[in-house]
Amino acid sequence: MNSRIDVAILGAGGLTGRELLRWMLRHPNLHPVHITSDQCAGQPVSAVFAELDEPAYASLRFSKHADALPSGIPVFLATPNKDSAELAPRFREEGRAVVDLSGSFRLHDASVFEKVYGFAHPHFDWASKSVFGLPEMFREEIRSVHSEGKILANPGCYPTSVLGALAPLAPVLGKSSCIIVDAKSGVSGAGGRVEDAGFSFGGVYENFRAYKILKHQHEPEIVEHLGRAGQFTPDLVFTPHLLPTFRGILSTIVIVWNDTPDAHLLEAMVREHCEAEPFLRFRSTPEEVELKRVQNTNFIDIGIRSRGNKTVVVSALDNLVKGAAGQAIQNLNLMLGLPETAGLLLQ
Amino acid sequence: MNSRIDVAILGAGGLTGRELLRWMLRHPNLHPVHITSDQCAGQPVSAVFAELDEPAYASLRFSKHADALPSGIPVFLATPNKDSAELAPRFREEGRAVVDLSGSFRLHDASVFEKVYGFAHPHFDWASKSVFGLPEMFREEIRSVHSEGKILANPGCYPTSVLGALAPLAPVLGKSSCIIVDAKSGVSGAGGRVEDAGFSFGGVYENFRAYKILKHQHEPEIVEHLGRAGQFTPDLVFTPHLLPTFRGILSTIVIVWNDTPDAHLLEAMVREHCEAEPFLRFRSTPEEVELKRVQNTNFIDIGIRSRGNKTVVVSALDNLVKGAAGQAIQNLNLMLGLPETAGLLLQ
Amino acid sequence: MNSRIDVAILGAGGLTGRELLRWMLRHPNLHPVHITSDQCAGQPVSAVFAELDEPAYASLRFSKHADALPSGIPVFLATPNKDSAELAPRFREEGRAVVDLSGSFRLHDASVFEKVYGFAHPHFDWASKSVFGLPEMFREEIRSVHSEGKILANPGCYPTSVLGALAPLAPVLGKSSCIIVDAKSGVSGAGGRVEDAGFSFGGVYENFRAYKILKHQHEPEIVEHLGRAGQFTPDLVFTPHLLPTFRGILSTIVIVWNDTPDAHLLEAMVREHCEAEPFLRFRSTPEEVELKRVQNTNFIDIGIRSRGNKTVVVSALDNLVKGAAGQAIQNLNLMLGLPETAGLLLQ
Amino acid sequence: MNSRIDVAILGAGGLTGRELLRWMLRHPNLHPVHITSDQCAGQPVSAVFAELDEPAYASLRFSKHADALPSGIPVFLATPNKDSAELAPRFREEGRAVVDLSGSFRLHDASVFEKVYGFAHPHFDWASKSVFGLPEMFREEIRSVHSEGKILANPGCYPTSVLGALAPLAPVLGKSSCIIVDAKSGVSGAGGRVEDAGFSFGGVYENFRAYKILKHQHEPEIVEHLGRAGQFTPDLVFTPHLLPTFRGILSTIVIVWNDTPDAHLLEAMVREHCEAEPFLRFRSTPEEVELKRVQNTNFIDIGIRSRGNKTVVVSALDNLVKGAAGQAIQNLNLMLGLPETAGLLLQ
Repeated sequence: MNSRIDVAILGAGGLTGRELLRWMLRHPNLHPVHITSDQCAGQPVSAVFAELDEPAYASLRFSKHADALPSGIPVFLATPNKDSAELAPRFREEGRAVVDLSGSFRLHDASVFEKVYGFAHPHFDWASKSVFGLPEMFREEIRSVHSEGKILANPGCYPTSVLGALAPLAPVLGKSSCIIVDAKSGVSGAGGRVEDAGFSFGGVYENFRAYKILKHQHEPEIVEHLGRAGQFTPDLVFTPHLLPTFRGILSTIVIVWNDTPDAHLLEAMVREHCEAEPFLRFRSTPEEVELKRVQNTNFIDIGIRSRGNKTVVVSALDNLVKGAAGQAIQNLNLMLGLPETAGLLLQ
Repeated sequence: MNSRIDVAILGAGGLTGRELLRWMLRHPNLHPVHITSDQCAGQPVSAVFAELDEPAYASLRFSKHADALPSGIPVFLATPNKDSAELAPRFREEGRAVVDLSGSFRLHDASVFEKVYGFAHPHFDWASKSVFGLPEMFREEIRSVHSEGKILANPGCYPTSVLGALAPLAPVLGKSSCIIVDAKSGVSGAGGRVEDAGFSFGGVYENFRAYKILKHQHEPEIVEHLGRAGQFTPDLVFTPHLLPTFRGILSTIVIVWNDTPDAHLLEAMVREHCEAEPFLRFRSTPEEVELKRVQNTNFIDIGIRSRGNKTVVVSALDNLVKGAAGQAIQNLNLMLGLPETAGLLLQ
Repeated sequence: MNSRIDVAILGAGGLTGRELLRWMLRHPNLHPVHITSDQCAGQPVSAVFAELDEPAYASLRFSKHADALPSGIPVFLATPNKDSAELAPRFREEGRAVVDLSGSFRLHDASVFEKVYGFAHPHFDWASKSVFGLPEMFREEIRSVHSEGKILANPGCYPTSVLGALAPLAPVLGKSSCIIVDAKSGVSGAGGRVEDAGFSFGGVYENFRAYKILKHQHEPEIVEHLGRAGQFTPDLVFTPHLLPTFRGILSTIVIVWNDTPDAHLLEAMVREHCEAEPFLRFRSTPEEVELKRVQNTNFIDIGIRSRGNKTVVVSALDNLVKGAAGQAIQNLNLMLGLPETAGLLLQ
Repeated sequence: MNSRIDVAILGAGGLTGRELLRWMLRHPNLHPVHITSDQCAGQPVSAVFAELDEPAYASLRFSKHADALPSGIPVFLATPNKDSAELAPRFREEGRAVVDLSGSFRLHDASVFEKVYGFAHPHFDWASKSVFGLPEMFREEIRSVHSEGKILANPGCYPTSVLGALAPLAPVLGKSSCIIVDAKSGVSGAGGRVEDAGFSFGGVYENFRAYKILKHQHEPEIVEHLGRAGQFTPDLVFTPHLLPTFRGILSTIVIVWNDTPDAHLLEAMVREHCEAEPFLRFRSTPEEVELKRVQNTNFIDIGIRSRGNKTVVVSALDNLVKGAAGQAIQNLNLMLGLPETAGLLLQ
């Protein structure tokens, strides 16, 4: 049964918007009928995204942000943090299903939020009415987001790569001494405009560097939700790096345990969890985890190896798919009672 | 005074050989007069390395490995591990200054050596007569290598990036709980033939992955020499990764301390040490440490930031220069009593 | 009506095979049920192509080349030239629809064939029973390939990029003095194994060069079919180059006319032709023609500008899609009476 | 005899300035003592160009453009076209040797100049007192630039790649029917700021396109000087392209002759000319001409192959060296009576 569900995308002119449009081309139910971008207003999809010159979008044009939305339809917010902070509660109060891809509803401690995002949240009371959309950790909460009148806060790309990989180990992470995360992302992880993505060729190509060391906004997001899933207070360091690639995040996570764990048991926990999840794939060696196997897919590939009281977990995903648009669709699928994988396999 | 010192390079047909030749073009004293490569034998330098089509090398041709060397001249060994294990002692017994760029004389525990390198060393007794050539840690030992009849074991590229960065902190590292090293290298770090460097375009480009997780031969090299410099037993995990770049290594090192240290003191230790070293450069923020600033130089750039009981140190170097050929020249300079920086600045 | 048609792919273990499998995931009719590769025999699709870890292929495994094919089903030959030369006639005589992606049935002059491909064709009599599968030039012939017992010779990637762009101008090319084609391809244009694609990272990255100058096998392919379409004898020079990219071919074609043509008329011919073709897209300026707009699509983007007696035509396509697997599917669609675009749009 | 000659660089904060500084580090005579950049004013060289953190430049800081220059010293103008148009005559009238790297004094037809550069030249009378600095064509004129009170107009990067390669054939090019030039450049060919070089990573990486088709300002520059060298009126089309690389230009030149020439004679002309020139290198096959062999050198590599009445010439150079800073130094060497290769070999 392929019942048609119209949806809107606000802030559709960037990389995340393009990816939402691309994946919904194949979705049996979700159909974008209203997309906004002040900069692209009036243009057809194909004028902005030549690779989406498809019959299904022949009559779809960008509207302005302020234009009225068709009533009742679900909305993806691919808008800046401050805009989402205003729009998500308003749309939710209109009764719409809301999937917010910004960072505005992911944290639940107001003082942490202000420090990290640099502005006073106008509707922080809604934080308690938002659900963090990582299905591998919080699937049941996500299923009831819409019926309970909540906002779906779609996770950040780095948090997805770390939490998706640590989800299987959450029950035992309380026995860790500390967790050191070294994450590397292609330039599209910065979101923004398709044309520039914020980085010059000369500054990225044949180069590599770390950024926002001990200061990245995704660290508290990881700490909060990992702690909640594992019922502990993570002692965690997160260091992001900029790769000279366009797509993909690879995270190398070293867990230091209080005592030497059973390495086979840890590996079995990860493998079995992956087998039960539609978008986690267990790799028999962590060296097989690499960007090119996950690019343009909604999968997270995961590998693990232990020695003494240390465990190395490596994960890879596509930051624009499982790290953004793909996961947003996965979440809306769950919220609307559709099959979780609808539209997210190539088939 | 620019007295001329003739030198030989064995195994000069690869990336390291090319780099040794390139830097010695500008060296006021060292002049390669005998270079070997069975594969390139008979060819002039410019036929193998078009970018070295220079008057100074117009009459220099590759010899075979077995061809007799001019007597007495110093020799760089850019040969495979097994070859160096045989050749270095022989050349040293002939009275030559020997700088070995292989891994055969860097470790001092025979059982570790065999496990790591996979063969029984034919002359492991010489390990005790070799000096690990990291001037930032062991300068005085290096100065007397030649006079004491020892072999200079030139460090690996990854160990140089880690030990060079941790050298300033060695006196206090005994207070660390564990050290997590996440290192990333361009493809030339694998050495080998210039033409292929062992990696296909399709396998490296727009890709990223870890390799030899908890199994890399450079981990015990780091542990041994860091422990010696700091008089402690490091609890260290080293994870190497392959970048889609040609040159450069960036290492992100997280030190977990037993107690919260004085962050300003640590930073001051690093800054002051760098100021006293000709090839270490302190960067006021660790985000400024990046590959493009060190490529084609003999520098290591270092930055540091601490929070609570964690310190993040980031270092960058060119794996073919400070990580191989440049450091080898720096070591021979010290061994021969030449200025340490001779030939290693652009000037 | 989505009637199911099972198909086979011989030589499915390479880049072209992967791409055929990828596009048929979405095809409403064509379903691969038999895929061969001696090297991958016994393995499931996902073990060879991790990105194709899809439910539709869960039970599909590679067979050996010599294994018996299900009777009657159409076959794609992604095999080497010599293998195709043997297999295509045999399968055609079995009554199968045959789409051959090799170069073995594209040329119709035996002496040219031997000179270009370096071997004596075992079944060159079949050349006269093969049809060159460029729908934009020879659609009607393609529609009747199967009913007339002929072989479909799928065009080379470079010829598609040149002939697709020149198809609109074919009627007037008899008035040209000469045609200079400068073509540039990413490494995947060389076909071969997925893992290496025949090119090392160090040899391709930050590099660019021409190859097979005045000697490339695609030049006579272009000359024969362009001459046939335009009823003239082209005076044409074709120079291929290797780009440091993975996907895509951009061809810059300069036509020197005997007399100054009507520039507006030429542009109108191209624009109108593109509007009538499902996979040609006219770009209003030739500067808008670029690889990134056509990668992972079956489109050819085309732009044109004239000055005096010269016309510059620029075209871009994805060498693995319109230049290989996509066009092969387009051709089989036509041969089987399916909609020409079936499976070839993202939708 | 290494007599010291102080020099100034105006507009030293960009890629060309960096390259001038880098090469002069090794120059036995030329020493930059005054460098300007309003944006970098007050900063030391190493703060702007970390890779030039060298003792020789320890005390050299950027001045403002308007700051007074030391009297009498030669000046390199790496300034925008309009600035050079004002400054070059003024500095020349002060008696300085002037090497202008802009496009303001390369053309000698005022109407062409205005059309191409889009502004009215304030001192076009100086065009007749400027010499086009391509030593391979106009060496004797260059030697007398300074003594005759003229300005040295350093050629554009593309014109150098084309004219350097065609210089050997200039005497016979009058017999050509037309010349089709297809040129490809890395992003640094656009000059500008080091940090951005004007191109985003997402727009260049894994992409390729032509630009300024039939409209590039370097086409009339090539036509004028090729015509002058060969005493004919070239019928020439020039199409530039943007490569996803940082450095290097490769030009593929197809000459269409009126009659079939003697291919061996043409090849011999090129080979012999190259052997007599310090910075031209003949490659025995044109396939050996590639970017990586010329990057970071002042060489132009050239190869040639003919068939019938067509000749293909391929050339490669480093746009920042032979295409800009290296050639500027070569020209100043000639103007000042220094050895032509001084400072321009690695040695």
